Formats: sequence, C-alpha cells, structure tokens
Amino acid sequence: MGDSPASGADTVAAIGEFGLIRQVTEGRPQPSTTLLGPGDDTAVVAAPDGRVAVTTDALVEGVHFRLDWSTPTQVGRKAVAVNLADIAAMGAVPTSVVVALACPPETPTAVAAELLDGVAAEAQRVHVGVVGGDMVRAESIVLTVTALGDLGGRAPVTRSGARPGDVVAVCGRLGWAAAGLAVLSRGFRSPVSVVNAQRCPDPPYAAGPAAALAGATAMIDVSDGLLADLAHLAEASVVGIDVSSERLTVPERLVDVATALGADPMHWVLTGGEDHALAATFRSLSDLPEGWCPIGSVTAPEAGVTVDGSPYDREPGWRHWT
Amino acid sequence: MGDSPASGADTVAAIGEFGLIRQVTEGRPQPSTTLLGPGDDTAVVAAPDGRVAVTTDALVEGVHFRLDWSTPTQVGRKAVAVNLADIAAMGAVPTSVVVALACPPETPTAVAAELLDGVAAEAQRVHVGVVGGDMVRAESIVLTVTALGDLGGRAPVTRSGARPGDVVAVCGRLGWAAAGLAVLSRGFRSPVSVVNAQRCPDPPYAAGPAAALAGATAMIDVSDGLLADLAHLAEASVVGIDVSSERLTVPERLVDVATALGADPMHWVLTGGEDHALAATFRSLSDLPEGWCPIGSVTAPEAGVTVDGSPYDREPGWRHWT
Repeated sequence: MGDSPASGADTVAAIGEFGLIRQVTEGRPQPSTTLLGPGDDTAVVAAPDGRVAVTTDALVEGVHFRLDWSTPTQVGRKAVAVNLADIAAMGAVPTSVVVALACPPETPTAVAAELLDGVAAEAQRVHVGVVGGDMVRAESIVLTVTALGDLGGRAPVTRSGARPGDVVAVCGRLGWAAAGLAVLSRGFRSPVSVVNAQRCPDPPYAAGPAAALAGATAMIDVSDGLLADLAHLAEASVVGIDVSSERLTVPERLVDVATALGADPMHWVLTGGEDHALAATFRSLSDLPEGWCPIGSVTAPEAGVTVDGSPYDREPGWRHWT
Repeated sequence: MGDSPASGADTVAAIGEFGLIRQVTEGRPQPSTTLLGPGDDTAVVAAPDGRVAVTTDALVEGVHFRLDWSTPTQVGRKAVAVNLADIAAMGAVPTSVVVALACPPETPTAVAAELLDGVAAEAQRVHVGVVGGDMVRAESIVLTVTALGDLGGRAPVTRSGARPGDVVAVCGRLGWAAAGLAVLSRGFRSPVSVVNAQRCPDPPYAAGPAAALAGATAMIDVSDGLLADLAHLAEASVVGIDVSSERLTVPERLVDVATALGADPMHWVLTGGEDHALAATFRSLSDLPEGWCPIGSVTAPEAGVTVDGSPYDREPGWRHWT
C-alpha cells in the first residue's frame, strides 16, 4: 500500500523480506516431520496421527517483552516456547512452527535476524521444524508463532475432564518469571537465574505427553499464573480446586530475591505467569509421572479455587489489557 | 508487563481478551474437520491425509489495509483469503485457521469484533473452521492468520516442477485489486467492483486442487503480481517463462477505470498484486481444468520472464518494505 522511506543499509527495509527470510531459513536442519520446508506457498508437515493440534500466540514489544531487558534471541525463543507449552498441555508432541514477524522498517537487520535465530534455536532444541513465515512492516515488533503438534494416538487432554476427588499436580517452575520481572522492574539485572526465567521460560515439554500417557484427566499450561490458570481449568471442568500451600515449596532463590525486594515469594508462586509450567489432574496420586508434584485436590464446583480452603485475597494473575 | 490506562467502556481494553474471544467464537458452526474447537490450550483438527499444509500471513493497518478504505469485516475476510489462496496453490483443501489479533487497547470493541466476524465469514463460506486465536495489545492493528489444509492424498504442487515446453495458465482475476487501489488512492470510492476487489480478494480456491488433480507441474498464488510471482516460480523451477499479452484479456471494467485515470490497464493485469489468482504450469493444453486460461509457455532458464518475448520494462510487482 503506502511506501515508507528506506533507512540505513543494515535495516530490514534495505535487505527486504526475501533477503531476510533466505538468511534465516537457508541451511537450517529440518526434522523428519518436515516434508516440505520454507520457500513455497505452504509448507507440508507430517501428521501421522491423522489429527493435528494447533495453537497461536503473539508477543508484542513493550507489552510482552522489552529489548532493553531481553536479547532478540531470547524473545524469539520465548515466542516459540509459549506455543510449544500449549502443545504439550494437550499431551501432544510439537512438530513444527510457522512465524510471522512484523517490525518497523528501520529495525536493524541484526535484530530481526536474531529474533528469527531465537525462534530457530528453541525449535531445533526440541526437534521442531521452522517450516514457514511471513515478514511485514509495522509500527512495533509483533512476533506471532503458530505451533503444530501430533497426539501420537492419544486423546487430547482438555481442561474439562477434572472430577472431584482428583489430585492436582504441577510440573515445572512457578514464580521464577514473576521474580525476574520484579527484579527487572526495579532496574536490576541479577540474580541471572530469575531474570533469565523472565526472559525465556523453560517449559517441561515432555511432561505433557507423559501426563497424557499416565491418564491425566485435565491439563493446562500455566501462562497467566497458577491460580488464574487453575481457575480456567476449574471453570471448564465445572469443579472447584483447593491448593495446599504447604505442598508448594518456595525455592530458596525466590526467598532470597523476595527478601531483598520486600516481596512475598509465595505470591509469586501462586500468581506469577510466564513460567509455562504444566498443571494437571489425575485420578490418584499413584498416577503421577516422574517430575509431577501433587499440590492440591479437585473439589465441588461451588467451592471455587481456594488456597488452604480459603479464597485467595490478592489478584490471582495476569490481567489482559486492563 | 506494563499496563496501559483503560479507555472507554466500548473498547477492547474494557471488555478484555476473554470477553472478546467468547463473543466471537461462541455459537459459531464448525466443520467436521474441527475435532476440538476454540477454548482449550490448542485446537485439534483432522488431518486425514497424514500430512498437513500450513502457511501464515499477516495484514498490518496502514501497510496492507486502511480502515477508511475497508470495513473491518472486509479486512478480516481478506486476512483469511490470502492464506487460503496459499493453501489452494499447493493443491490442498483448507480445513482450518487460527488468528492472532494485535490491536491498541483503545480500539472500539465493535471494530475488533467485526475484524473477527470477517475472519469467521470468509472461513465459513468455504467450510473452514476458525479453531483458535490470541488477542494482544499493540500500537497498531496486526491481524495474523495461519491456515491448515489437507492434500487428500495428492502430492503438493510446488513452485519447482515446471519444465520447458509446459503451458502456463491462470485462474482467477488479475489487475482488479490494482485498479481498485488506484481508484482509492485518488480519493474515489467507485466503481465498486474494482474497489471491492482491493478490499477483499475472491481467490478461486477450488481451482487449486482441480489443477493438482489435472497434473499441474508447478503452481503459485498470485499475491505480488503476475510477472513477479511467475518470476518466483521460474526461479524455483530453473526455467524461463514467456507471457503472451494477447492471451491476457483486459476486462472492459478495467479499461474504463484506466481510461478515467489515465492509466494502463495491461500494466495492472501484468503486475497488480492482491487478487490472489492462481498461476500454474501443465504439460499440455489439454490438461487445463475448467476455468484455467493459457497465457504463455515455459522456456529455457536463460530467457528469464518475458512478455511477448521481451523483458518487461516496468516494475514487475509489489516490493516488500523498500
């Protein structure tokens, strides 16, 4: 439509869409599920199960990330990780991603290339193909990833199968990204362990299919915060959930950071988003696969989501937009 | 991360992500390929072929559309259409889309809802499910759609299978959207036929699988302009292509508009993007399915892409970013 003036030689405007796409896709290894990789009108990906799990999530500069807090590579990795965590939360194994990168024309080529390098790095780490993409001009950076996954013959584990009496369990970290955000928001850059947790999550991808195999009755990715996401699961299953706070061990690192900042580490664990742990329900304690920790139980719907039998009296997690 | 101040009551900030998603997904019919629709961590879509074609394309306000030129519904439809045309260009039948909508918090709820209504309308028109989505805050509107398609047992028709001697053919409209853009750019709003072609394409989706069945050797979606996209196909196939201008009938409507604006209608036909016609190559004229028109022939690679045997001496189509 309109054309904007081209900027310096090392900008995406100068190199152009096709140049950049070529730069970031050429020579990348592809897993065996990639039947036809980037470069045509569509990619073609294996779906041996005859069904495909699909999800999409976008990260926006200034909303979901800041390039003075994270490297472009970390942002690219995070954009993939948040999507693959959704795939895992259905009990599926991710096969491929496509990525749409919107950015201002004056964006340095290196920044755009590193964003896409991060996308490729996180995907490659778990044998997922980056099979296609689009690059467009926009006022700010918006990185939208869509992930596909294979269910391997298993039923998808939805949010709606929990029943009163089920055990509630989690796998993965809770509160780390929230602690990192608190640190970064106060202008600090350490401790690196919590700061890096905010910059890029480390979701327990394999724990999703393992939970599905073990008979998980419901499952969700903890993106908004434990209590907020358990509330989504409880609503879909028409049940209540009680979390036992003594089951939630607060890592020493979070205690240290909270003490330094005058914060409550248990609040981070209960409500902090962006760690992308998995939460699931199981019929009995003996069903839990390795790495899953019981943290509560499914109750009657009228009880709602409670902590130690009482409603939690602080904001239960990330609120979108408001 | 940061919070922006909430605006008026009828904005996306006020209704929130979950309210809007509920508003646009509840009660929507889903085709039989949608095994699990929106509302969980991922959707699950049938992939009976055991392979899935996947593509993603983003539309950005001020770059790909203007809301003083198009209604939000037209923009939503276009975002789906450009993706489904890519699916068709592989010879696949689209099954589902997911949509990520980034928009400023002060966007009126009605605008966001109509964008998503347009997405649903175009999808529903061709029995495609809108199976999932994400809504995020951003500085401007970015609408990213990812489409999945099923190959029905056919080999994907790539860009790289054309051989010298093949017939080049097109199906669908050429130059209409370019004429519409010329009209809109001069501040006019009619004739509606060309203006609406710019606002929302009408790709010949079914012609893609039909061409695949008929033995098309290569195929591409004409998004950037006929000569530009034939150049992509020629490059991938390592061939040249000669277009015969006398085979390209210029519709009377385009002649009228061009006369009024002092423009060359054949230039629109040869270089205008956004109509999303399909271009393909076939071994012989008798292979062309109904609706496909021969427009040229595949030549030796050193000849490049020519019109009536000569290089085309004007800009061959949409240039990204620059």
